[in-house]
Amino acid sequence: MADISAKDVKDLRERTGAGIMDCKSALAEAEGDMARAIELLRVKGQASAAKRSGKDTSEGLVVSYIHATGTVGVLVEIQCETDFVARSDDFRDFADEVAIHIAGAPSTPAYVSADEITESDREAERRVFTEKATEEGKPDDIVAKIVDGQLNKWAKDVALLEQEHIRTDRHEGKSIEELRAAISAKTGENVRIARFAHFRVGGE
Amino acid sequence: MADISAKDVKDLRERTGAGIMDCKSALAEAEGDMARAIELLRVKGQASAAKRSGKDTSEGLVVSYIHATGTVGVLVEIQCETDFVARSDDFRDFADEVAIHIAGAPSTPAYVSADEITESDREAERRVFTEKATEEGKPDDIVAKIVDGQLNKWAKDVALLEQEHIRTDRHEGKSIEELRAAISAKTGENVRIARFAHFRVGGE
Repeated sequence: MADISAKDVKDLRERTGAGIMDCKSALAEAEGDMARAIELLRVKGQASAAKRSGKDTSEGLVVSYIHATGTVGVLVEIQCETDFVARSDDFRDFADEVAIHIAGAPSTPAYVSADEITESDREAERRVFTEKATEEGKPDDIVAKIVDGQLNKWAKDVALLEQEHIRTDRHEGKSIEELRAAISAKTGENVRIARFAHFRVGGE
Repeated sequence: MADISAKDVKDLRERTGAGIMDCKSALAEAEGDMARAIELLRVKGQASAAKRSGKDTSEGLVVSYIHATGTVGVLVEIQCETDFVARSDDFRDFADEVAIHIAGAPSTPAYVSADEITESDREAERRVFTEKATEEGKPDDIVAKIVDGQLNKWAKDVALLEQEHIRTDRHEGKSIEELRAAISAKTGENVRIARFAHFRVGGE
């Protein structure tokens, strides 16, 4: 039987809303494979109650920002703990400012946080940087160092929370994470940027 | 040397903006692997000019719709051929109606068209349906037939273009694909729903 961590059980619970024991046994049956465990719960009909209970535990807003040209748009989900905070002006202002930032950021973020970068995305970037450095004739013994530096910089560039808000005067050069921490402190609730989408006509 | 199709060359060109010969040689070097070919073009610096030229060939709009509750939002990219059509009221109305539909559809679409469903998503669905049918004690020899029927229904349910617009009175029960064909005929341009995002607070 696979070793099931408490964190996996918690994650599965949040994603499906199924009971703790059901999550444990699904994970055990799936040998720790999260996607498979979700499937198993769906088979048993335990993942549908799921989403409902998931929704109850999390409040927040979905906000959008469409650039004046009509060709760039952003959708963001920001979560908090209570409906009261979700309806407050401070929370809405924060959400709107995040959307505006994503729309205009010089480096469009690809992830909320650097932690989310998958190993395969990181490896793909590593290959590109490595081949570039090699093609540029850099000696083999320093290519790895150059690439590590470039990867760290890239991870910061594509992570929303690490970025400095584009309205540097209004936000005094603070990062999105610093602004998030500030609204969290002000409201006394955990505030989380859950996800975002950025579309540019004809773009990626 | 892998057999490189004209379609792959065209796709790679549209995705990177690199020249035809560069795309051909990148695909050959990548043995037909599209993701790898994009990487190779990036290494050679040919994929950055890329996005720029891609943008020139495609006009359209990004529109959003946020439900009055503030907890459900949709972002859609709709493409056409000219800026003139992109700025027309008819085109904008169509885009807005698509966004409203996605926000309120009884079965939230997961794909623009059923063609986009990946083999692994289809197989995951097949496993769920198969196990359900088996658990329900259906005889083995008819499980496959039941599952095929369920898979076909599922593929239609999750494909935006196949769905009937939720405003059945306003749109006379037409599907999104029928409405797309109508705006395409009216404007005389190819109109394409390129992609969409649907966020619900605390949801999937």
